[in-house]
Amino acid sequence: MLTINGPRLLDDLHALGRIGATGAGGVSRPALSAADMAARAWFERRIAEAGLEYRQDGAGNQSAMLPAADPGAQTLLFGSHLDTVPDGGRYDGALGTLAALEALRTIQEAGRDFPVHLEVISFTDEEGANISLLGSRALAGGLTPDDLASPHNGAEAFAANLARAGLTPAGILSARRPPDSLLAFVETHIEQGTRLERSGTDIGVVTAIVGIRSCWLTFTGEAAHAGTKPLTERRDALWGAADFIRRARDLVVERFLPGTMNCGLIQAAPGAFNIVPGEARLALEFRHPTAARLDEMEAALFALGRQIAATYGLALDITSSGNVPPTPLDESVMAANAWAADRLGLTHTRLVSFAGHDTMAMAAIAPAAMFFVPSVEGVSHQPREATRDADVIHAANVLLHTVLRLAESGR
Amino acid sequence: MLTINGPRLLDDLHALGRIGATGAGGVSRPALSAADMAARAWFERRIAEAGLEYRQDGAGNQSAMLPAADPGAQTLLFGSHLDTVPDGGRYDGALGTLAALEALRTIQEAGRDFPVHLEVISFTDEEGANISLLGSRALAGGLTPDDLASPHNGAEAFAANLARAGLTPAGILSARRPPDSLLAFVETHIEQGTRLERSGTDIGVVTAIVGIRSCWLTFTGEAAHAGTKPLTERRDALWGAADFIRRARDLVVERFLPGTMNCGLIQAAPGAFNIVPGEARLALEFRHPTAARLDEMEAALFALGRQIAATYGLALDITSSGNVPPTPLDESVMAANAWAADRLGLTHTRLVSFAGHDTMAMAAIAPAAMFFVPSVEGVSHQPREATRDADVIHAANVLLHTVLRLAESGR
Repeated sequence: MLTINGPRLLDDLHALGRIGATGAGGVSRPALSAADMAARAWFERRIAEAGLEYRQDGAGNQSAMLPAADPGAQTLLFGSHLDTVPDGGRYDGALGTLAALEALRTIQEAGRDFPVHLEVISFTDEEGANISLLGSRALAGGLTPDDLASPHNGAEAFAANLARAGLTPAGILSARRPPDSLLAFVETHIEQGTRLERSGTDIGVVTAIVGIRSCWLTFTGEAAHAGTKPLTERRDALWGAADFIRRARDLVVERFLPGTMNCGLIQAAPGAFNIVPGEARLALEFRHPTAARLDEMEAALFALGRQIAATYGLALDITSSGNVPPTPLDESVMAANAWAADRLGLTHTRLVSFAGHDTMAMAAIAPAAMFFVPSVEGVSHQPREATRDADVIHAANVLLHTVLRLAESGR
Repeated sequence: MLTINGPRLLDDLHALGRIGATGAGGVSRPALSAADMAARAWFERRIAEAGLEYRQDGAGNQSAMLPAADPGAQTLLFGSHLDTVPDGGRYDGALGTLAALEALRTIQEAGRDFPVHLEVISFTDEEGANISLLGSRALAGGLTPDDLASPHNGAEAFAANLARAGLTPAGILSARRPPDSLLAFVETHIEQGTRLERSGTDIGVVTAIVGIRSCWLTFTGEAAHAGTKPLTERRDALWGAADFIRRARDLVVERFLPGTMNCGLIQAAPGAFNIVPGEARLALEFRHPTAARLDEMEAALFALGRQIAATYGLALDITSSGNVPPTPLDESVMAANAWAADRLGLTHTRLVSFAGHDTMAMAAIAPAAMFFVPSVEGVSHQPREATRDADVIHAANVLLHTVLRLAESGR
């Protein structure tokens, strides 16, 4: 049975982890930063050293190609991303990209050929230093000129990053591919959670990626003197926001698990020790894997907010800040993942991804799915992020056999 | 019976209200700003126009003098302040200062003389744009070089303000007066609350000024991915802070009224929609008129914080940010206030001040007290701040007869 070269893959992971390394063991490679450019140059060299064809599209997505004999064949795409959050870890994205490269090297060395093009891809800016899922959305046709006009880092920084990478807005939009050109997309990734580790399972076959909605809740009461205004007469906006935080958590735990909620930002205004807050702004985000339950969560959370506002004599304004629908993944690709894990004697389970991934964008134009390997203690997006070497190798082998299975089905 | 000139006092109030006026009907005269300097120049002119002697001490406190025959006599001091909070009201401080000037003008015109110097004073920076109670604390000897080294507005802005007013740190410290030089201090002020208005009472004789303690509560948990970290496993620092806000309020209402509490500032870190807050900083301020109860409140609030931190698996750091002890006021001055109100046929009650005032600083070196007149709807520190004309005139008349009573007792 064909298996990947474990030491070569681990060497690649370690080499990549030194690019943009921070003192604490983490890495900082925000997309299109100098560190990311260095990682991209390194990845291009590794592709060339493997004797594979290197390509880069208008969105800066980097590919390693093993073409089929027929130039008009469909493409089986697999990969992930090389960029990281600031002071993030060495596995998020890097594992999936390098496992894909290793799988393709293994297939090439085995001299196997297929009726489909095999293409490893590293997508630009999965983490959204500029624009979330920039590369995969561009390829899938999910990016608009409007999206390009409102980057997270502001127009000026975005333009400087594009210039550094030799990219242009028009080039990014040109990266779109015709849906019928793709046979399938598959990604492997670290879990970033504890479900696999806790249950002692090797592989998590992802059935869906959660939908994510975010909004600002603005409670408005009346600013007042913190000494002279009696406690029982105040319309303190922060009391409403504080009550909401705790009760929203209880609501989701009681009625909407495995859904999640988070309040990650809060501001009280005018903002002084001795002024009763007349306004409190609260950032609310909530996630659920199914659209119907996400709708129900939203209705229940907003009703809770309005009920609390009424209780405290406050006004409540809710302004949407984002709405990513849940993405059900492709059963045939999931089946190939499970088949590959079984063939390798690895245990597997089906689970939902509570984080967004490039697979989410790719599902719009191709049968797409992804699978997870365990994260040590579930830690992610920080220097302690880790996956055991054995699990890294499992990831690449399951990806290899998933690709073989899907490529053969393409005959 | 001697009474003040109501129209003249109201004209003064209206004239002063135009200096630093904001569009909305409020005024912005932070101490030593250009607007405050204009108000100070206007006040000096009004003193000169009244034929009273004008003085300014090293702290910029402005005085109108009606000296006794004996230069070595004690001084009976009365007044308030002309500075305001940004976009504040036309009565806070202004009423007490102009009522004092009007009372002194009335005494001078009546040709009355006393065995004590009568001195109207307008203190510098009661509101603390630079340093809270700067003028009264300087006069009372309660200001240290350390205080002058840490102004609220930063060293640079403070130095620029001092230069604008021709003041120096050494000059400010030189404003200290010997305690035995003062017979008493009395201030009239708007209530900034609703107790007088609700009870239909003309005059509030203030028995004590609340103690105020402030601190930062820092809850520390663990930052995490807002999607992949299960709700039931999070150590969300903001959950602790939110729970504290509501329960601290309930604790004070249930056990410590008429004490008050306020959480006026809050920050969650790292601070993003999709990151579980690992740290939450909360500004807590609490007030009570008696020192023993203030100690009990602090113990109960801090115990609540620690209990909540333990419940949510958080660490809690508490850092003090201020401690102003309660100030009991002088019974003989309070008695003179009540006597004056009775003489004028005005109703009066005893109450506590939940806001700080210059009288707090003055109580350290002289028998000191203050009395309130009603605020319309209790509104203060904003453009809608108001006191009815009749109550403005009551304030000046009660101050006049309080001064007459105390000055006579100085014989």
